[in-house]
Amino acid sequence: VSASTSVSRSLRAAGQFRPGCSVASAAKCWYPSRVKVDGTHRRTIAASPDGRAVDIIDQRRLPHHFVIERLTTMLDVARAIREMWVRGAPLIGAAAAHGFHLAMLEDPSDASVERAHRELLATRPTANNLRWALDDMRQSVLGIPPDRRAAAAARRANAIGDEDVAINQAIGRHGLKLLSEVHRKNPSKRIDILTHCNAGWLATVDFGTALAPGYIAHDAGLPLHVWVAETRPRVQGALTAWELAQEGIPHTVIVDNAGGHLMQRGRVDLCIVGADRVTSAGDVCNKIGTYLKALAAKDNGIPLYAAVPYPTIDWTLDGGLDGIPIEERDPEEVRTVHGADQSVRLFPPGSPVANYGFDVTPARLVSGIITERGVCRASREGLLSLYPERGG
Amino acid sequence: VSASTSVSRSLRAAGQFRPGCSVASAAKCWYPSRVKVDGTHRRTIAASPDGRAVDIIDQRRLPHHFVIERLTTMLDVARAIREMWVRGAPLIGAAAAHGFHLAMLEDPSDASVERAHRELLATRPTANNLRWALDDMRQSVLGIPPDRRAAAAARRANAIGDEDVAINQAIGRHGLKLLSEVHRKNPSKRIDILTHCNAGWLATVDFGTALAPGYIAHDAGLPLHVWVAETRPRVQGALTAWELAQEGIPHTVIVDNAGGHLMQRGRVDLCIVGADRVTSAGDVCNKIGTYLKALAAKDNGIPLYAAVPYPTIDWTLDGGLDGIPIEERDPEEVRTVHGADQSVRLFPPGSPVANYGFDVTPARLVSGIITERGVCRASREGLLSLYPERGG
Repeated sequence: VSASTSVSRSLRAAGQFRPGCSVASAAKCWYPSRVKVDGTHRRTIAASPDGRAVDIIDQRRLPHHFVIERLTTMLDVARAIREMWVRGAPLIGAAAAHGFHLAMLEDPSDASVERAHRELLATRPTANNLRWALDDMRQSVLGIPPDRRAAAAARRANAIGDEDVAINQAIGRHGLKLLSEVHRKNPSKRIDILTHCNAGWLATVDFGTALAPGYIAHDAGLPLHVWVAETRPRVQGALTAWELAQEGIPHTVIVDNAGGHLMQRGRVDLCIVGADRVTSAGDVCNKIGTYLKALAAKDNGIPLYAAVPYPTIDWTLDGGLDGIPIEERDPEEVRTVHGADQSVRLFPPGSPVANYGFDVTPARLVSGIITERGVCRASREGLLSLYPERGG
Repeated sequence: VSASTSVSRSLRAAGQFRPGCSVASAAKCWYPSRVKVDGTHRRTIAASPDGRAVDIIDQRRLPHHFVIERLTTMLDVARAIREMWVRGAPLIGAAAAHGFHLAMLEDPSDASVERAHRELLATRPTANNLRWALDDMRQSVLGIPPDRRAAAAARRANAIGDEDVAINQAIGRHGLKLLSEVHRKNPSKRIDILTHCNAGWLATVDFGTALAPGYIAHDAGLPLHVWVAETRPRVQGALTAWELAQEGIPHTVIVDNAGGHLMQRGRVDLCIVGADRVTSAGDVCNKIGTYLKALAAKDNGIPLYAAVPYPTIDWTLDGGLDGIPIEERDPEEVRTVHGADQSVRLFPPGSPVANYGFDVTPARLVSGIITERGVCRASREGLLSLYPERGG
């Protein structure tokens, strides 16, 4: 049973697909695409029509410019991941899968398999989805002759994309119940979600993780409003605000500092964030600053959920702070900010800067994990209740 | 007994001035000036040599350009406060005092007294020091004939400046004990302070509040390192980094999101922040984001102190979140960031933004208040132990 089959079977068991949908076409059965730019549907990443390249949205240019880039080599993809043309754990995984396919087009040898795995894995250290996708891609080609590896890698890269879309739709459905519950308790009030970073379509192949429940709630007519934390240093809040504007969902941007104040004043019903890696004990490694939001949520009795596809869960880690590599990035990301067409320095070139990309929110501060299989407690027992095959 | 005399007496009682120093010259006896720009000492605000204007540092231009502005009318001063050419609760108070003096030069009538009080008070809502200084200035002129009011106001404005310097030096001395204690416990390790916003010289007339203990510790040869939170949206962390660079104190800039991560990893010994208003119950209203830092400090067993001159304490408020007006500023401050000579947009003009200037950290999260009279618990009992005249 492949991971993909297993996920889709679980989704069907939960009654989330239209009758008659096959596992392979599951995503297409429901929403062909959620990503909607100026009214046009597309995915954030897809093989080019001739199958010899991969098309991505260059997220460095958003929210000011919408630019599609075509990447033609594995090293181009590695650079796009490293320099955050693409970002978000699920999308990093999907991009690496396509990058691996391009490597097989270039050279399908065993050495090339190992090199592609190594080069792409080295791009960013924290997202579990990256290693997951690369291990999966390597597995998909190692048993077969080199001359058939490119085709097999293409199929698997596309399947990983399809699966991501199906997973995220399921996360959205499960998360919807949480939002519905908020609404049921106080139907006359809008539902105020707070999110950090971008865990929407742009962080995935489509549909998003943390934003998926909101998208479905909005479609279902629930009155939704999203507080968007700007998320310094890379200001992924601008991506979230742009996405929500494309969807027509009311939202308000705040600086990262303001999240606690809003929670203290009763202006937030629910926090939902994505994750880059979740330990088997339910600790959530996500964009730097998530821990602070979680502390404020706890202090004010506001639930905080992490929306997590299964490839984000690192079953090799059993909790604590030490197992997850926390990326440290270029200090220039803090010193200099980029606008539509120019950049400005906030800090002089010599000013010492430390730039940590992620933090770990201990499971005790997380109300639950929303996965494609349902919502569980942020604990080993909780995760095993959804993934019993990982037990004992 | 005027407030000024009372403070200075308290300082002398604590043995903090050289023998033979008078109350009036107390500040000069110790450090004539701490503010040091490219090696030259000055204050952040002072009457012009002819006494008919006030010279300020235009903080909007820092850290890129050091520019002195001469303000010649009360309305100029009001604008400089509103638009944050000057900022920081103590400096806002001192600036308002000088602005009041300029109003008396223009027109010393009773109507002008009330107008100056009203116009200057309306500039910013949160800092308690603003009302304190304006009430003090009004009091200093109301009993005397109009033709002598300008001279009286000048004397009082200058005295408020001198007193601020003396207060901050005393805060530094009291806070030094806390840093010495950290050092004593682990002499081989640097002392890691984390601060938020700017509560250094630039936020005061001289010497700073939250940074004063560090300055004295550094002079005393203690190995100090300061984590500087950038403090979006106005990036006052750049002011703090610039000040620390002028002082030659090791420091590292981080985004606001990173404070929790550092505390979680044992990289912070002590947090020290300033305040814009402190309730009589010890709740600390300070720059937005302070509450999040305080939650992280509490969660990791790291002490967090607020360094507070007495004019910041609002004895009319007995605690809770509701009494302190939280300033909401122009959304453009979040959407657009300013560098040395140009600005860039992070968010499109239509993107909805909320821009809260401050938050309130409940007393339960504050380890203590450092005032000019000593360090006390953040509670009514604690504050009354230092200010017994406010009891009963």
